[in-house]
Amino acid sequence: MDSRRAESFSDGVFAVAITLLVFNLLAIGRGALSYRSLADAWPQYAAYVVSFLTIGIMWMNHHTLFGHVRLIDRPLLVLNLVLLMGVVAIPFPTALVAEHLTGPNASGGQPAAVVYGIVMIVISLFYNAIWEYLVRHAGALGTGATRRLLRESMPMLGGKRLPGLRVPRWSIGLGGYLAGVVVALAGFPAWALAIYGLLAVFYLFNHLPEPVTADEAAQAPPAP
Amino acid sequence: MDSRRAESFSDGVFAVAITLLVFNLLAIGRGALSYRSLADAWPQYAAYVVSFLTIGIMWMNHHTLFGHVRLIDRPLLVLNLVLLMGVVAIPFPTALVAEHLTGPNASGGQPAAVVYGIVMIVISLFYNAIWEYLVRHAGALGTGATRRLLRESMPMLGGKRLPGLRVPRWSIGLGGYLAGVVVALAGFPAWALAIYGLLAVFYLFNHLPEPVTADEAAQAPPAP
Amino acid sequence: MDSRRAESFSDGVFAVAITLLVFNLLAIGRGALSYRSLADAWPQYAAYVVSFLTIGIMWMNHHTLFGHVRLIDRPLLVLNLVLLMGVVAIPFPTALVAEHLTGPNASGGQPAAVVYGIVMIVISLFYNAIWEYLVRHAGALGTGATRRLLRESMPMLGGKRLPGLRVPRWSIGLGGYLAGVVVALAGFPAWALAIYGLLAVFYLFNHLPEPVTADEAAQAPPAP
Amino acid sequence: MDSRRAESFSDGVFAVAITLLVFNLLAIGRGALSYRSLADAWPQYAAYVVSFLTIGIMWMNHHTLFGHVRLIDRPLLVLNLVLLMGVVAIPFPTALVAEHLTGPNASGGQPAAVVYGIVMIVISLFYNAIWEYLVRHAGALGTGATRRLLRESMPMLGGKRLPGLRVPRWSIGLGGYLAGVVVALAGFPAWALAIYGLLAVFYLFNHLPEPVTADEAAQAPPAP
Repeated sequence: MDSRRAESFSDGVFAVAITLLVFNLLAIGRGALSYRSLADAWPQYAAYVVSFLTIGIMWMNHHTLFGHVRLIDRPLLVLNLVLLMGVVAIPFPTALVAEHLTGPNASGGQPAAVVYGIVMIVISLFYNAIWEYLVRHAGALGTGATRRLLRESMPMLGGKRLPGLRVPRWSIGLGGYLAGVVVALAGFPAWALAIYGLLAVFYLFNHLPEPVTADEAAQAPPAP
Repeated sequence: MDSRRAESFSDGVFAVAITLLVFNLLAIGRGALSYRSLADAWPQYAAYVVSFLTIGIMWMNHHTLFGHVRLIDRPLLVLNLVLLMGVVAIPFPTALVAEHLTGPNASGGQPAAVVYGIVMIVISLFYNAIWEYLVRHAGALGTGATRRLLRESMPMLGGKRLPGLRVPRWSIGLGGYLAGVVVALAGFPAWALAIYGLLAVFYLFNHLPEPVTADEAAQAPPAP
Repeated sequence: MDSRRAESFSDGVFAVAITLLVFNLLAIGRGALSYRSLADAWPQYAAYVVSFLTIGIMWMNHHTLFGHVRLIDRPLLVLNLVLLMGVVAIPFPTALVAEHLTGPNASGGQPAAVVYGIVMIVISLFYNAIWEYLVRHAGALGTGATRRLLRESMPMLGGKRLPGLRVPRWSIGLGGYLAGVVVALAGFPAWALAIYGLLAVFYLFNHLPEPVTADEAAQAPPAP
Repeated sequence: MDSRRAESFSDGVFAVAITLLVFNLLAIGRGALSYRSLADAWPQYAAYVVSFLTIGIMWMNHHTLFGHVRLIDRPLLVLNLVLLMGVVAIPFPTALVAEHLTGPNASGGQPAAVVYGIVMIVISLFYNAIWEYLVRHAGALGTGATRRLLRESMPMLGGKRLPGLRVPRWSIGLGGYLAGVVVALAGFPAWALAIYGLLAVFYLFNHLPEPVTADEAAQAPPAP
C-alpha cells in the first residue's frame, strides 16, 4: 500500500485527538463561575498544554518516521494502528491528571500521574518498534539509504549519541517518563506533570536530524 | 464522480469515529480514583482495544475495496453512506459493553454484547453488498479486471476458499460474530467480547490477497 | 483562492459533523439496560438514521455545487461558511427530536420537530443562495458553461422542472420541510420526522443531473 | 518540511474545532423543552454564531498566511502548534459565555466574557508572531517577495494603514478585543459578546489584500 494513504489517515486521527483535548477545559465553569474558580482550575490548563504539545510533537515525529518510506506493508500498518491506539488514548490520562491533581478528588493525583507516564512510555516503545521495523525492511519499503545511515538518523528516540555521552538520545525520553512515574509514586504528582511538560518543551525546540535520503547517502563520505 | 472524493470523505469519517472511542475511557475516574478503581475498569479498556482494532481493520478493507475502482456512481455512494452509518455507530455498542459487563449495571451485559455483534454483522453484510456491486459493475467503475478475478480476490469477506475447505472465507467473520451473539445469549457476554477481539486480531495478521489490476489480469495464466 | 482548499475544509467539517451524530446514541443505556430499554430508544435510532442520510446527501450536493467552479472568492467563502454553520448545527435538532419524541419529556416533541424543520429550511435556502451566486459569477469563478445551462443543471434544489409539472424541482425539498413543520405544529412530531426521512431517501435514490462542463455546453445542441 | 503537510494538519484541527462548537447547542433542551426554553437559550445561539464565524475567519487567514511560503521550519511549526492550541481552546470560552450570560449562573457572565476576549487577544498576538517570522525568514521559507512588500500585504492584522489614519489596521482587531474586555469588566458581558461578533462580521466582509507573489513583486512599480 502507498504510505501516503496511511499517513493521511494518521494525520486525521492526530488532528481529532489533539482537538478533543478541549473537553478537559469544558468541564471548567459548570455551575458557578468566578475569577477564583477559573484560577483554581490551573491543573486543567496545565494538563491541556502539556498534552497538546506532546501530541503535536508526536505528529511531527510521525511525519519524520514515515517520510523515510514510500510503501507500507501489513505489519507496519498494524504497528501504526497500535501506535495510534496509544495516541488517541492520551485525553484519558490528561483528564485523570486534570481532575485529580487538586480539589476533593486529590487522593487520585498519584495514580493519575502514574497512568499518564505509563501511556507515554508505551507510546515511546511503539515509536521505537516502528523505527526498528523501518530500519530492518528499508529496501522493501522503498528507501534507498543503508541501514546504518537510517539508524543514525533516527528521530527523537534515535541512536544518535549525545556529545560526550555513551547513552543513546532516546533514553532521555524514556528516562524522563520513568522519572515522572517515580516522582508521582513518591507522592508528588504535580511535579510529575511538570516533568512531562519539560520533556515536551525539550523536544519542541530540539532540532532533530532529518532523515537522510538515498541521494544524500550516496554522496556521503564513508563513515569512520 | 471520481472515487477519490468519496474515499477521502470516508477516511475522515473513519478517523473521527476511531478517535471518538476515547470517550469510553473518559468515563473512568469521574469521582474518586484509585489503583483499584482503575483496575476495575478493565471492560472499558477491553472494549476500547477491540473496537479500535475493528475500526482500523475496516478502514484497511475499505481502502482495498475502493482501490479496485476509479469511478463511483450514485448507488455505490449510497451503499458507502449506509456502511459508514454502521461504522460511525460502533462507539455506541462499545459503550454499552464497557458499561454493562461488570458493576451495578451488569444485568445489561447480555443485551450489550448482542447489540455489539448485530452491529458488526450488519456492517459485514454491507461490505459484502458493496463488493457484489463492485464485481457486477466492474467495467463502468473503471476497473479492467474480469469479474471472476475480482471475485477471487475479494478482501476479508472474500470468495477465496480456505485450503481443504469448501466454505468461503468470509464465513469466518460472519460466523464469528454470530457465535459471539450466541455466546452472549447463553449468558457469557465477556466471552462474546473476547470472540470479537480474536476476530479483529485474526484479520489484523492475516495478509489478504491484494486486488488484481487489469495489467496483472492480462498477464495471468488462464484459471483452471 | 483555489476552490479545492475550501472543499477539503468543508469535507472535514461534514465528516466530523456526521460522525458526531453518534453522541445521540451514546445517551442510550446510561443506567439500567435491557432489551426493552433498547427498544424504547427507537426515536434515537430514527433521528440518527434520518440526520445521517441528510448530512450525507448534503455532502454529495456540496460536491456537485463546487464541482462547477475552479476558483472561489470572498463572498462565496462567506456563504459557504454560513452554510456549514447550519450543517454543523444538525446534531442539535437531531438530539432535540430524539430526546423529546417519547418518554417523560414528550411535551417537547412538537417544538423539537419544528426546530428540525426550520434548520433544514435555512440550510436549503443557503444552498440556493450559493447556487445563485455560482450562476451569476460563472465567468469569474472559472466555469465556461453559459448561465442558462448552469441554471438548468442546478442540483437537487434546481430549476429543472418535473415532467408534466410547472413547479421547479427544488420546491419539493422546501415544500417537504415546510409540510413537516406544519405536521409537527398540528401535533404529530413523529410524522414530521418520517417526512424528513422520506425526503432524505427520495434524494438518495433520485439521480440528479450532473453539472455540464464547458466542453459539453459547446457541443450541446441549441436549446429550444 | 513541505508546508502543505502542516497546512493539511492545521485544516483538520480547524475543521474539528469549528464542529465541536455544536456541543454548546447540545446542552439546550436537556430536561423539559418548550418554545420558551428554546428562546431563553439565545446566549447559546449567539455564542455559537460568533465563535463559528471567528474560527472560520481564522481558518481563512491561516491559509493566506501560509500561502506565502513553500517550506516550513521547526520554529514555524512550533509557533503554528501554539496558535492551534489557542484555536482549539475557543469552544471553552464559548461555553463559558453561553452558560453564564443569563440564568441562575449569570454572576459568571463577566469573567466569562473577559476570558473570551483574552483568548482572542492571545491568538491575535500569535498570528502576529507568525507573520513577523514569515517576513523575517522569507528567503529561507521559499517566498521570493521582498520583506517590505510582504509586510505591506499582511492579512487582517496587517501593517496596511487605513486611509486617512496613521494607525495600522491590525489595531482594530486587538483594540476591539481589548474594548470587549473593558466593556465586560464594566459589567456588560452581553455587549462584549456583541463586540466580538461585530469584529467577526467586519473581517468576513472586509476583502483583505492577497499576498503578493514574487512575480508580481518583480513587476510592481517602485513604492514611493
